[in-house]
Amino acid sequence: MGNQIKAANRLEFLMKEIADIQSASSLLQWDQETYMPNGSANFRSRQIATLSGIAHEKFVSGEISDLVNGLLEFNTIDPLYQRSLLRIRKDLDRKEKLNRNFVEKLSQSISTAYQFWEKARQSNDFNLFSSHLNTIVKLKKEECEFIGYEANPYDVLLDEYEPGMKKIRLDEIFSTLLPQLRELLDRIKNAPHQPNDEFLRGQFDSKAQWEMGIEILSGIGYDFNRGRQDISTHPFTITTSPDDVRITTRISENNIQEMLWSCLHEAGHAMYEQGLSANSYGLPGSEAASLGIHESQSRLWENQIGREFPFWKAHYSTIQQTFSKAFGSVELSDFYRAINLVEPGFIRTNADELTYHFHVYIRFKIECLLIEDKLQVSDLEDAWNTMYQEFLGLTPKNCLDGILQDVHWAHGSFGYFPTYSLGSLYAAQFYNSAVEQIPNLENQLEEGNTAQLLQWLKKNIYEKGRLYNSEEICTMATGSGLNPNIFMSYLNKKYQSVYQF
Amino acid sequence: MGNQIKAANRLEFLMKEIADIQSASSLLQWDQETYMPNGSANFRSRQIATLSGIAHEKFVSGEISDLVNGLLEFNTIDPLYQRSLLRIRKDLDRKEKLNRNFVEKLSQSISTAYQFWEKARQSNDFNLFSSHLNTIVKLKKEECEFIGYEANPYDVLLDEYEPGMKKIRLDEIFSTLLPQLRELLDRIKNAPHQPNDEFLRGQFDSKAQWEMGIEILSGIGYDFNRGRQDISTHPFTITTSPDDVRITTRISENNIQEMLWSCLHEAGHAMYEQGLSANSYGLPGSEAASLGIHESQSRLWENQIGREFPFWKAHYSTIQQTFSKAFGSVELSDFYRAINLVEPGFIRTNADELTYHFHVYIRFKIECLLIEDKLQVSDLEDAWNTMYQEFLGLTPKNCLDGILQDVHWAHGSFGYFPTYSLGSLYAAQFYNSAVEQIPNLENQLEEGNTAQLLQWLKKNIYEKGRLYNSEEICTMATGSGLNPNIFMSYLNKKYQSVYQF
Repeated sequence: MGNQIKAANRLEFLMKEIADIQSASSLLQWDQETYMPNGSANFRSRQIATLSGIAHEKFVSGEISDLVNGLLEFNTIDPLYQRSLLRIRKDLDRKEKLNRNFVEKLSQSISTAYQFWEKARQSNDFNLFSSHLNTIVKLKKEECEFIGYEANPYDVLLDEYEPGMKKIRLDEIFSTLLPQLRELLDRIKNAPHQPNDEFLRGQFDSKAQWEMGIEILSGIGYDFNRGRQDISTHPFTITTSPDDVRITTRISENNIQEMLWSCLHEAGHAMYEQGLSANSYGLPGSEAASLGIHESQSRLWENQIGREFPFWKAHYSTIQQTFSKAFGSVELSDFYRAINLVEPGFIRTNADELTYHFHVYIRFKIECLLIEDKLQVSDLEDAWNTMYQEFLGLTPKNCLDGILQDVHWAHGSFGYFPTYSLGSLYAAQFYNSAVEQIPNLENQLEEGNTAQLLQWLKKNIYEKGRLYNSEEICTMATGSGLNPNIFMSYLNKKYQSVYQF
Repeated sequence: MGNQIKAANRLEFLMKEIADIQSASSLLQWDQETYMPNGSANFRSRQIATLSGIAHEKFVSGEISDLVNGLLEFNTIDPLYQRSLLRIRKDLDRKEKLNRNFVEKLSQSISTAYQFWEKARQSNDFNLFSSHLNTIVKLKKEECEFIGYEANPYDVLLDEYEPGMKKIRLDEIFSTLLPQLRELLDRIKNAPHQPNDEFLRGQFDSKAQWEMGIEILSGIGYDFNRGRQDISTHPFTITTSPDDVRITTRISENNIQEMLWSCLHEAGHAMYEQGLSANSYGLPGSEAASLGIHESQSRLWENQIGREFPFWKAHYSTIQQTFSKAFGSVELSDFYRAINLVEPGFIRTNADELTYHFHVYIRFKIECLLIEDKLQVSDLEDAWNTMYQEFLGLTPKNCLDGILQDVHWAHGSFGYFPTYSLGSLYAAQFYNSAVEQIPNLENQLEEGNTAQLLQWLKKNIYEKGRLYNSEEICTMATGSGLNPNIFMSYLNKKYQSVYQF
């Protein structure tokens, strides 16, 4: 027993040390996007790389592995602690299979590819990026081989972001989803009553928008004593300690939606991180379950809350008073229709809740083809454009509106995109169960009261940490595994109301 | 030759890695004092401690020591590179003598002592802090024994901040300085024309002050592309990379001097750091020589520039226009007299250029007595009050105005205070030589042109890095070692003009 405690304490010490290093690295990244003077970019890259290298070395040095193996052999082990150990064991297995030489080669290729992705964007020329993307695809294929898989190499990549998820299951989900989305989109296109969203693109004072954002964030439960908001080019959430989860927003004076959706979206990510238990800092019990679950939290606050009536019944008068010129004579029902307008477009991050999933599916499909060697990078632009025509009825006029719009592949993040769709589906399913389980939830939201919803999310999702995978959390919280039809019901109900068919 | 290059490259790699860790730690500290949400204080302490621990471990792991020893044996070594190696060797010698157990004990005692220093300040009760201070004094004495010394244990403590400085030399310096300062103070007290400084304590809009500060900083040569200014409770300078040296200021709406002197003072520190060569990042060639030399740079810009006529001939009209109510009808000569008012007070950081050195001397004297075991912590408050009466003619009414005013001892920083006086003396001597060596320097300053002065400082001080000690730098730049009489001439000349005797 003494040895067991001693080993557990040592493991905790080592894992917390790594968490400290990663936290410091997060602050370096936050600062880079917010306050860092331009001149320091090169040194900042070095600093982040050095800390990542040290954290990796410490994790795979052998001591953590030995401690975990030793602890797993004790019979008297607590089942939740065992789950925690098994998570670490799995992380080790993955990281130990990649030798340092490979990790450095990948990291260097990503650095270079990112630079050329930026250059290609400046010149609007995919060819400047394609050979570097090709290198990354090759390395990601190697990574799949190093780590090993049963059915499909793509499963290896998925598993990094969405533990337990498989390509075959995603195919199933999308084959349920896509035909229903297409049908709904057709009905929307043909609806006689199209919403007008012109008043969302007026003239909105930055300072007033900023203050409204802060008010909304405080109102829904984002804890400013354990976080802060700043401005950055691309909004993001970052955790620099369990008691310091920061978000950023972007404000456009001509379009109030930039601020609104980024505040709600990032607050959803951030309240998840703020709600993780700090008791097992450094261990899986204090970590987020997956990117899909993470995205479910941002989507839930952005869409199920922020794009629905109850929330705006509480907040519309504030926005009307603050921006009376734009909204003074706009009815809440017209505002609601405007913020839920559906319109196929080129850019994923600007997409509505419906067409968004076509963007994701195209990327998922392309990633699989690349990794399975069924598509070459040289043919990528054509494949992209063909699929955009097929799913969205549009052909990008240039690379910026097409193949070069996302940074993910330049970052080596293959298998990441599907988690966006999973997030939307989980969000609808979680919210559906919350409504069933919390009496009068929507009345509470109409009064601007989100406390019980937040409590429900904390208990059913946040506090599970990374001790369960997405499907387990979903089943415990909602009574069943992921069911895309719940998302479809949500969308159908919403667009019937918006498009009045 | 191949081995020599290989070893030098490896040493550089390891030293740069440590510099990256220390840079990250600096950013954590900067953030703690500027933007960190309150809730995250505990985690931040851990993060900083972890990074310090890792940097220390890597430095004394043995590999660096072996590389340095090996490289020092080559005959073909460049003399400057040899200096660099010898600096590292000296740092290693010091750090290797302190075992990890001692380092951790000291670090924990400092953490605790700092908390009790804060509590004691809140309760205005030295007794709450004294036993913790006693522990630190004991540990510092142990540190002196571990490291070893020839003449006096205090030399060990001095050497950390001011390499090469000895207690016996400080005694000499102060025995030259103190009688002359006392005599000058008497003449000032008895002067018939006392300046009026009331107009400095009016009503000054924060935003206008902030903008004036930024204008002054840009004007004198602080590089905002490689730094930034923010607000903090206590102004400081911090280097988060050779290309990112940040400063902070404090603004009081009732007293414009807070902003003015902190901007110039911190800019002096920061331009030194910005002017260090980045070529040998991680090695002594890119590091500051000592705290005394560092302080000489802040004092030079604050006093020799900021409290003298040439600078204000260039800038007084701006301050008059911005704050016309306060300064509109005040002549430059009266402004000059006001900012150079001499008045004995309790608080070191508020002291004028003359009485400041009594504050420092009292602390130096007390530190020596404590370390030499000639004074007990229990008798400290009495000793402090007696000396304040003797040197400044004042007895503090409470601990906040007396023994508890500085954080240094709670931080374990013994041997630090004397570097403040050294800084003032070096500043006067450097400026004196700059005036001699740069034709028409004061005319340039009157035109708001600091470029040649900055160039002179860069060449004679900044670019020497830590390859030379303070006395060597002083001798190369000014033709002689530190000469306190140059500072006294500067003060005598100034106060003859201010007090018109």
